[in-house]
Amino acid sequence: MSIEKTVSALGEFQLIETLFSRLVMADDKRIIKGVGDDSAVLNIPRTQHLLTTTDTLIEGVHFNSDTDPFILGRKALRVNLSDIAAMGGVPHWYVLSLAIPSTTSLKWAEEFARGLDEAGKRFNVSLVGGDMVASTGPIIITITLNGLVGEGRAIMRSSAQVGDRIYVTGTIGDSALGLAHRLGRVKISDAHHIEFLKHRHQIPEPRLSVGKMLQDTAIARSIIDVSDGLVADLEHICSASGVGARLHADKVPLSDAARAVLDGDDTNRMMQMVLTGGEDYELIFTASADIADAISDITDQTGVALTEIGEIVKGESVVTVCRDGEPWVLERGGWKHF
Amino acid sequence: MSIEKTVSALGEFQLIETLFSRLVMADDKRIIKGVGDDSAVLNIPRTQHLLTTTDTLIEGVHFNSDTDPFILGRKALRVNLSDIAAMGGVPHWYVLSLAIPSTTSLKWAEEFARGLDEAGKRFNVSLVGGDMVASTGPIIITITLNGLVGEGRAIMRSSAQVGDRIYVTGTIGDSALGLAHRLGRVKISDAHHIEFLKHRHQIPEPRLSVGKMLQDTAIARSIIDVSDGLVADLEHICSASGVGARLHADKVPLSDAARAVLDGDDTNRMMQMVLTGGEDYELIFTASADIADAISDITDQTGVALTEIGEIVKGESVVTVCRDGEPWVLERGGWKHF
Repeated sequence: MSIEKTVSALGEFQLIETLFSRLVMADDKRIIKGVGDDSAVLNIPRTQHLLTTTDTLIEGVHFNSDTDPFILGRKALRVNLSDIAAMGGVPHWYVLSLAIPSTTSLKWAEEFARGLDEAGKRFNVSLVGGDMVASTGPIIITITLNGLVGEGRAIMRSSAQVGDRIYVTGTIGDSALGLAHRLGRVKISDAHHIEFLKHRHQIPEPRLSVGKMLQDTAIARSIIDVSDGLVADLEHICSASGVGARLHADKVPLSDAARAVLDGDDTNRMMQMVLTGGEDYELIFTASADIADAISDITDQTGVALTEIGEIVKGESVVTVCRDGEPWVLERGGWKHF
Repeated sequence: MSIEKTVSALGEFQLIETLFSRLVMADDKRIIKGVGDDSAVLNIPRTQHLLTTTDTLIEGVHFNSDTDPFILGRKALRVNLSDIAAMGGVPHWYVLSLAIPSTTSLKWAEEFARGLDEAGKRFNVSLVGGDMVASTGPIIITITLNGLVGEGRAIMRSSAQVGDRIYVTGTIGDSALGLAHRLGRVKISDAHHIEFLKHRHQIPEPRLSVGKMLQDTAIARSIIDVSDGLVADLEHICSASGVGARLHADKVPLSDAARAVLDGDDTNRMMQMVLTGGEDYELIFTASADIADAISDITDQTGVALTEIGEIVKGESVVTVCRDGEPWVLERGGWKHF
């Protein structure tokens, strides 16, 4: 029997040195001081506004004890990157708070750090600080990510206007269906479909290039990313902008795998899962009606499909979901945290 | 029997609205957008560098289940403020990640928010974002605090020079003795002393005014705040600066309450507790030998005592603790996280 080495064998400082020093990119001129002092010191370019967002993942709530830590590291950073994309910004630095039981295997910590490293290098963001503490309970991962956007150029939720068209990137519902399959709540026979949906749940794709182009071209009036669910997050735009929305369920873009599930014998329930399941990390944005050319330009340059799924209407924070042109009352809302 | 209302009765969004909206200060011109979008948008003044620090407090590790949530809210913000003080900066904004079981009483959450509010108003910092999630285990509080400091003016740990004198603010060891008393590890008879030490453990005083003056006057070569323990944190300065230090235990400033404990019958053990116990949140700084006038100016203006406790010497990351002029080998180091 081999005895697995735990994080307590190294201690905090050596652990940080061993695991996380490689996550610090040395060639970022904006980082005056990264990890290793009481706080990081960062140089914000003139003409830029700072973006700050934070997300927490808890074992037993957002992931399971047997979740691959390499995937978890990638996901933890990606969900924060999605928030910067939803402002039209460019991500730059993050701080990590990692609470893990002292009995956590060193291998787990190494794989988690490798996941962060992969995502950091892929999206060009650097670790500049953090805190490692011993948890008496579950593993808790909090990342606070900073980005930059031109002064006055951040795209808020609150600027949607009546008459705007509503667009969404990529496809919706894959993540929820991937999770539902893992939990045994939906049967899927095609192995490729299962693999695809699982991947979409595990490795969200922050739509940074689309967000940046929407900001550069000043096309989008408002953006949000889909974490709580398509309907719930569209409601957040409505609530912040003091408007309503009509969402055409038939127009919501689906992957082949999701389409196959919906073609099964539980279409109603599955469609609601797609619309409300959440964790898609696609962008919803609103734009004036006359931008078809610009939309196809963005798709050409980013390779990401943009699909019109509804329109902003008068009303107070209400999303009317339509199906075959008729209002359709859903049985459940978005992800509830409590 | 009264049924206590829990946080799950409100749900995430109403909870945030109810508890935390008042923590947002409306009159801060630098906050373009605070709570309520995918990320906060902040205006960093030209000529300023950004400071970022993060700290996590976990129930069962950093505080007990019966800790007064009002005190906890104050402390959670204050420990982060201390890190900004240790850079010579001015704190401005924070984001909060709060993981609490859904069975947490609403009263607890209200009191915690009231504590944050008190500290935020006292030190002029505003909540600009956060995340609230349901914990399956302990309460976990992560705060990431941003501050500003003039370009090139942040005071690092790494700039101590051989010949520098070592100073410390306030008094050392009160927090450790306060905790030790609560845990029954030290007997104290004087009720006023007990109350004083308990207060020092519960409500650390971030030395922002001293840190700012040390930066304004360019007196300090290096600063760190004492969280892990006086010796351990002085070692961090030595390690970052590639120097050694001599620390005169007899010169370490003590409160009347700590002095009374050390006058008891377990002086050796108590003195080591003072030097290594941690959570003092006082500043250690190093400065050239000829600044006595400037030191007394700072004390006059801030009301905070500054005491010379040693000097930086040649050597590699070693702190030699001296007592009656002789080296004294301690039995334990600083706070170990794992």
